Amino acid sequence: MGKVRTILLQKGVFDDNDLQARKLRDYLKSKGTFLINVMSSPGAGKTTTLVSLINRLKGFMNIAVMEADIDYDIDAVRVADKTGCPSIQLHTGGMCHLDAEMTKQGIDGLGSFPDLIFLENVGNLVCPAEFDTGAHLDAVILSVPEGDDKPLKYPLVFQKASIVIINKIDALDYFTFDAEKCKRNILENNPNARIFTVSAKTGEGMEELTNYIKKTIKEWH
Amino acid sequence: MGKVRTILLQKGVFDDNDLQARKLRDYLKSKGTFLINVMSSPGAGKTTTLVSLINRLKGFMNIAVMEADIDYDIDAVRVADKTGCPSIQLHTGGMCHLDAEMTKQGIDGLGSFPDLIFLENVGNLVCPAEFDTGAHLDAVILSVPEGDDKPLKYPLVFQKASIVIINKIDALDYFTFDAEKCKRNILENNPNARIFTVSAKTGEGMEELTNYIKKTIKEWH
Repeated sequence: MGKVRTILLQKGVFDDNDLQARKLRDYLKSKGTFLINVMSSPGAGKTTTLVSLINRLKGFMNIAVMEADIDYDIDAVRVADKTGCPSIQLHTGGMCHLDAEMTKQGIDGLGSFPDLIFLENVGNLVCPAEFDTGAHLDAVILSVPEGDDKPLKYPLVFQKASIVIINKIDALDYFTFDAEKCKRNILENNPNARIFTVSAKTGEGMEELTNYIKKTIKEWH
Repeated sequence: MGKVRTILLQKGVFDDNDLQARKLRDYLKSKGTFLINVMSSPGAGKTTTLVSLINRLKGFMNIAVMEADIDYDIDAVRVADKTGCPSIQLHTGGMCHLDAEMTKQGIDGLGSFPDLIFLENVGNLVCPAEFDTGAHLDAVILSVPEGDDKPLKYPLVFQKASIVIINKIDALDYFTFDAEKCKRNILENNPNARIFTVSAKTGEGMEELTNYIKKTIKEWH
């Protein structure tokens, strides 16, 4: 199992979060560390998707994970256990999102600069989208049981994310979910969104997502 | 179809939301109107559950619905269409929750005092729990695909709600969801929570929930 720690984040004191986010992005770039911010509503499968993705990526690069939760310790342990990668649990102390300064506290807590850090943001489709964390790539996960209309109801997060992962496609037969309509709803908000349909549970579609992330990080260096 | 309007809410200006919430609760009591605040994450089935519940309750009382969304108009039309009850769409203008003053603006927009108003809060398990809307009853809906651990990850909303509705139990065979464990996780946060397991889609368990709400309103009068 990877190393696991828990830290309680302090609320950011900087007024200009966008500036702090740019600084963090540049700082991480200077260290050669690519940061991916993963957002979704509760239960969309962020942790399962990360585990599946990390196990496909870890042969190619060093990876660490930051698990943000209001007050809960299981996810970091689960990820470390299932991937062997170092993982840190970030407690937001009731806060519904992470800003760049809170993200920086997490990175300081990790105490290393791997090739890739995944930040699992608080489960919430609203607030996390309003704050730039300093990530180089923002991803949102939407799961089939949530419904194909969610990109219309929570437009900001779908505008902010450059990749959208439609998860739990193994459950497509069970729910009324029109994948093509969902894609149109995403592209209406964000014509440049790169959309992946996956099942983190069965592995379907995960290879394509893995390859995209590998390619993106290679081009970024 | 019931009457539908849309209004854009203004952010509350009162510092003391708890005081405004108590005032609103008393005001509605004086009008004989019972207010139920329904919270959940996106896609847990709030609207479907409300439609099912309203169609069971509407023979016994007058009902209106307030649908809060960041920026979306479909839910109010859907509820009005499927129940025949008046429905108002509340746009929060990006806000992740409703406070008591915003709720009051919605009630003023309705322009009537039915026996029962349902407030469908913004889809978010974090922020809505922090603000008393002035409701007489707070309910949270958790759906099977979200996972049985959510009461541990989002404790506040489960502490605030007096009733917890576990929805989409028709999908129990399809997901790894331990209903008994979920109930223990809920009761650990809130030993007084009244828990209902339902499928708004098939109608399973809806009768018990309907009877509980009828009884609660009768006792309140």
